[in-house]
Amino acid sequence: MTDMILHTAHGSGRRAAPRISIERILHPRSVAVFGASESVAKFGGRIIHFLTRHGFAGDIYPINPIRAEIAGHKAYPRVSAVPAAPDVAILAVPAESMLDSVREAAEFGVGCCVIITTGFAEAGAAGAEQQAQLVELAERTGMRIVGPNCMGFIVPHHRMALCSSVVLNTDTLGDGSIGLVSQSGGLMVSVFDRAKTDGIGFRYGVSLGNQSDLETCDFLEFMIEDPETKAICLYIEGLLDGARFRRAAARCREAGKPLLVLKTGRTEAGVVAARSHTASLAGSWEVFTAVCREQGVVLARDPDDMVRAAHLLAQHPGERRGGRIAVLSSSGGGTSTASDRVTEVGLALAPLQEATRHELEKMLLPPQAANPVDLGGRIVPADVEIAGDATRILFADPAVDYGIGFLMSMPFYLKRTLAIGEAARDCGKPVVMVCTPGAAADPARQELRKTGWVVYDSFEQALRVLALVADYDRLRGRPVEKSSRPAGLPQSESLRAWRAGPQTEREVKALLASYGLAVARDALATSPETAAEAATAMAFPVVLKLVSRDIVHKSEVGAVRVGLIDKAEVLAAATEMRQRVRAALPDARVEGFSVQETIRGEAEVIIGVRRDEQFGPIVMVGLGGIATEILGDVAVAMAPVAAAQIRSMIAELRAAPLFAGARGRPRLDVAAIADAAERVSWLAHDLGPRLTDLEVNPLIVRREGGGAVVVDGRATFKDQA
Amino acid sequence: MTDMILHTAHGSGRRAAPRISIERILHPRSVAVFGASESVAKFGGRIIHFLTRHGFAGDIYPINPIRAEIAGHKAYPRVSAVPAAPDVAILAVPAESMLDSVREAAEFGVGCCVIITTGFAEAGAAGAEQQAQLVELAERTGMRIVGPNCMGFIVPHHRMALCSSVVLNTDTLGDGSIGLVSQSGGLMVSVFDRAKTDGIGFRYGVSLGNQSDLETCDFLEFMIEDPETKAICLYIEGLLDGARFRRAAARCREAGKPLLVLKTGRTEAGVVAARSHTASLAGSWEVFTAVCREQGVVLARDPDDMVRAAHLLAQHPGERRGGRIAVLSSSGGGTSTASDRVTEVGLALAPLQEATRHELEKMLLPPQAANPVDLGGRIVPADVEIAGDATRILFADPAVDYGIGFLMSMPFYLKRTLAIGEAARDCGKPVVMVCTPGAAADPARQELRKTGWVVYDSFEQALRVLALVADYDRLRGRPVEKSSRPAGLPQSESLRAWRAGPQTEREVKALLASYGLAVARDALATSPETAAEAATAMAFPVVLKLVSRDIVHKSEVGAVRVGLIDKAEVLAAATEMRQRVRAALPDARVEGFSVQETIRGEAEVIIGVRRDEQFGPIVMVGLGGIATEILGDVAVAMAPVAAAQIRSMIAELRAAPLFAGARGRPRLDVAAIADAAERVSWLAHDLGPRLTDLEVNPLIVRREGGGAVVVDGRATFKDQA
Repeated sequence: MTDMILHTAHGSGRRAAPRISIERILHPRSVAVFGASESVAKFGGRIIHFLTRHGFAGDIYPINPIRAEIAGHKAYPRVSAVPAAPDVAILAVPAESMLDSVREAAEFGVGCCVIITTGFAEAGAAGAEQQAQLVELAERTGMRIVGPNCMGFIVPHHRMALCSSVVLNTDTLGDGSIGLVSQSGGLMVSVFDRAKTDGIGFRYGVSLGNQSDLETCDFLEFMIEDPETKAICLYIEGLLDGARFRRAAARCREAGKPLLVLKTGRTEAGVVAARSHTASLAGSWEVFTAVCREQGVVLARDPDDMVRAAHLLAQHPGERRGGRIAVLSSSGGGTSTASDRVTEVGLALAPLQEATRHELEKMLLPPQAANPVDLGGRIVPADVEIAGDATRILFADPAVDYGIGFLMSMPFYLKRTLAIGEAARDCGKPVVMVCTPGAAADPARQELRKTGWVVYDSFEQALRVLALVADYDRLRGRPVEKSSRPAGLPQSESLRAWRAGPQTEREVKALLASYGLAVARDALATSPETAAEAATAMAFPVVLKLVSRDIVHKSEVGAVRVGLIDKAEVLAAATEMRQRVRAALPDARVEGFSVQETIRGEAEVIIGVRRDEQFGPIVMVGLGGIATEILGDVAVAMAPVAAAQIRSMIAELRAAPLFAGARGRPRLDVAAIADAAERVSWLAHDLGPRLTDLEVNPLIVRREGGGAVVVDGRATFKDQA
Repeated sequence: MTDMILHTAHGSGRRAAPRISIERILHPRSVAVFGASESVAKFGGRIIHFLTRHGFAGDIYPINPIRAEIAGHKAYPRVSAVPAAPDVAILAVPAESMLDSVREAAEFGVGCCVIITTGFAEAGAAGAEQQAQLVELAERTGMRIVGPNCMGFIVPHHRMALCSSVVLNTDTLGDGSIGLVSQSGGLMVSVFDRAKTDGIGFRYGVSLGNQSDLETCDFLEFMIEDPETKAICLYIEGLLDGARFRRAAARCREAGKPLLVLKTGRTEAGVVAARSHTASLAGSWEVFTAVCREQGVVLARDPDDMVRAAHLLAQHPGERRGGRIAVLSSSGGGTSTASDRVTEVGLALAPLQEATRHELEKMLLPPQAANPVDLGGRIVPADVEIAGDATRILFADPAVDYGIGFLMSMPFYLKRTLAIGEAARDCGKPVVMVCTPGAAADPARQELRKTGWVVYDSFEQALRVLALVADYDRLRGRPVEKSSRPAGLPQSESLRAWRAGPQTEREVKALLASYGLAVARDALATSPETAAEAATAMAFPVVLKLVSRDIVHKSEVGAVRVGLIDKAEVLAAATEMRQRVRAALPDARVEGFSVQETIRGEAEVIIGVRRDEQFGPIVMVGLGGIATEILGDVAVAMAPVAAAQIRSMIAELRAAPLFAGARGRPRLDVAAIADAAERVSWLAHDLGPRLTDLEVNPLIVRREGGGAVVVDGRATFKDQA
């Protein structure tokens, strides 16, 4: 059903040129409000009220069949009665009359309809059908649609709150430099409300709902080019065009603009929720993650964390090595808990320079003149200067990327807190201030806020936000390697010769060999007797496998035997294997036996490729066994991928120490693994839409310099397109 | 240095009987305040002030050499001038004069000295020496000491704030049912201040600092037996007596009283911080974790989370299956993010009963009549009843263990929020209310607080707390299995025959065999020729190993060869092995060659035992390779341990699917693994302090019913005690 929705929404191809740009939609000169009312208890009433209250400078046209004037604006019985077609119309009318209203708007020349009303694709088949009719209108006329099932947008610098949420019932809108695009309207206004308390403002807040016409990337692309937008936050339930998102993210990276994303549908439960909320198909989380890592996009799990990290990044655009934190606390309990938590989330306490320690030791007891600093243990009498000076000295250390002021309720009095705040601001680095709430702490919290600080309630909160900042800093520092086609690969047209369906192991190995991978030597035999004969031509022990394209998991049906040490064992094994498979799978077509040399190595690696609906061919590399299959410790990248990038991804796996030779083991030939994966990624690329999946399992990897050899593989192809 | 501190503090053995009970220390009839002052800018001034302000009903004796009266209380020039020896004296005098003051107190008959002053063991060797003298006084006289480097305690029901923190400058102390014991004073008062904002009160708040005399377990044991203490929270930097803690935790479990612990020193950075803060030795985190899991102790990572979870558990003492959550949200963005996060932290969305869905469908659109409930999508007009009714229906479902009301700023108006709050309270289950802050949301937040709710700022916060509650519920439901000594084990006295130092593999295997483990058959040979001869008596292929107690990691020096398929290969391998080892390790004593049968199985398991300083013998079980060595995915238990407990711990490993037969693999013989581990744990127990470490690596495990066989092992023993 959801496939159908996407198809009707986006699949029809022929469409009229857009009437209006995204820039104009966000900065309209005129707005028509359907269902306008004097009553702020109604959607249309609040919209008029907020437009007026926040001083929208363009024309406001209330649409109301009865009233002559609403909230001081001349009202019109229908949109076509308005003096000139408005740039934007916002509609919260009932779903039943929506199509008529939108049709009239389209015919009259309205630039864009923002549809608040719910009950469309997210509510089932009937709603999806109604939504499809709206989209058809947009495509035919070039009028754009935002929504349905959205909450409109907020553009503070344009003095425009085109949104009905009570959150906008404030004196100011809170201008800022963060662009926020959210499928969920509720989430947008909740984030907006909370950020306001923190003193964080937005350049744009856009809610998209069902994304029937305009979608996340339309606004993302605009904000990337908008010089006043310094960081971009997205809340995504379903991505409509993965390739477009990837291109936009790459552009954002080039522009040096932080992009942070909260995407739901990371778990099965989240996939179901996204579908019922905005009729969104969540897509594969692991692939989305890989695209984001590739392009330096930060993945958040909490919307407020995302916005706070964006705020820090917008304030501190400089490049940092990333990950090294200095903590200043008012309590030894604070320094102890902080030390553990910093390390547990994968960050590090910055190792201070000798000069820094020396300076700190002038005012603090020796064990406290370290990182974290415990201001509780002073040698000189308590006063304001110590707090400010210690802060200044600690955060100025060149090894410190970020600072945390962890001010528990006691013993931090107001003046000292403000001295710390002032010194911390002067250091010019991303610093977060934690001041746990409570009656004793609240005056200090309020004063810190007044001087521009976002005050965090807990160390956990602050650390989560800094971890996002560190993610950005680390990812942006990573070079993006482009893969160039290795010399000697076959022409991709040659792949047309391969028939559709599952391939035999021998076929897969032949294909891999043609792409330059080393594969284990084997011989095909048609009977147990000829298999035994073929084995004598190799070095014992040998491996024996049944050849059949109907058996995908050979070892599960006893169709693989390893370590056969002489001719007699091969004969016996082949005879038994044939009998067993005939009994278990009488319909399986058996093409013979494959006798293979035994490949010895240090580890087994799996290389897999498949085609993702959103992003195209992807490649996965992981250790065989528990790491890949149970723990999901796998490197994932878009294909084709450069060997250098595979290497850096392997270095980030949890199993990385095994590749690098942990605990007296030899170093694996990671270069050979990466080379093999790059070649397989080109094969995936060349197969194009014919690829269903292909897996090298295992690739036997030898110690560094020894190479890597494919000993088994499987693949399934689709028909020619 | 820290070892010395612990020794002088606790190691002297002979000590006078305690003068005063913990109960009396926490409920003194009289208190002397050294350094008492009229000025609240001074420690002693604030203590007198807070004692008076909160209505302490016992006698208050200010000690001040100059003043005749302080804050309305008759002052005394020294403690020995007080009419009767006070139960408790609190001292914030300078470290230099501390010993004299404490000596006078001890001689006069004071029950307990609470020492606030810092600069003792946590500050270095000189301070440690001073602390040792204080402790010597306590041990000789029976007077007790709390601290030094503490902040005293708070006992609201006794109207006593024996603490100088400005946090106590409040109208009420906030009586409650949670007992809090914290090494850090700053953490105690910060937690206290914040909890007060939440409406959470304490039965006791005790800070211990350096634990020079009275330590965590003294107060823990008291609170376990105190019927009004319903849940206990501990903040620990260093445990002084692991065995005592384990016994107390077991008693707490029997008493059905939730015990929650935040322990620092989980990471290397945390270990360093704990040492410099309260001179504490952190101990092994993995072993502490194992003890806590065994005894149903909940491990927290944030102090406020710990207290909030304790509050929920104290309010809802009933037993629950645990782990299944229902979420009610005001936004589809909320339900989507909630769905992902609940799953990601290892909890589950409760699957609703048919009747519940049916009831919800009367008021909500079909996709919202599920778990999570999205109150945004209603079919009937927005009103108060729907919100309350949906809450009541959802949380009443028997599949629901816990509820989360996730009320983002919009569109929840005050009345609806309160209706949800009321309905949620009526369900009688642990429910948390999230209402993200902001100008629009704050009135609802305040009203919720007034009706007794702890209002969470973010879903993350609430989920972390529920995860702790779920931990408790799951752990308490687990039976504790006691291991009884398996029949046929040797007398532990027989182990006296084993000499100290590293044992050879053959010796370890013989020892394991005597404890009833299956071991691989082998033969000892003194030369390559006799090794080849011995091999012919076994089935090929065979394994060849060099026998030497000087080589711990045989495979790293090429002293192991597997898969030798005939006599010639054995001869060649043994010859080469001898040459290689002679070249690489000329000093290693070589006792010969071991020829072993090849054991085939489905997986390799490691069983290790070692002796922990705090807790005695411990046993560890994990899969060989990456799982254990790189990922630390290991079951850890105190020895001896019952096989049934090992099995339930294996089921909780990340690698558990591999034991249970994931992805077409056979089920492993977990019973055989558990039996082997239980026997090894008895061996560890019997070895007592002679055990350094012993490792079975690998134990080859066959499919279910096929058993498990030791193929290699190593051990090191200490001299007889």
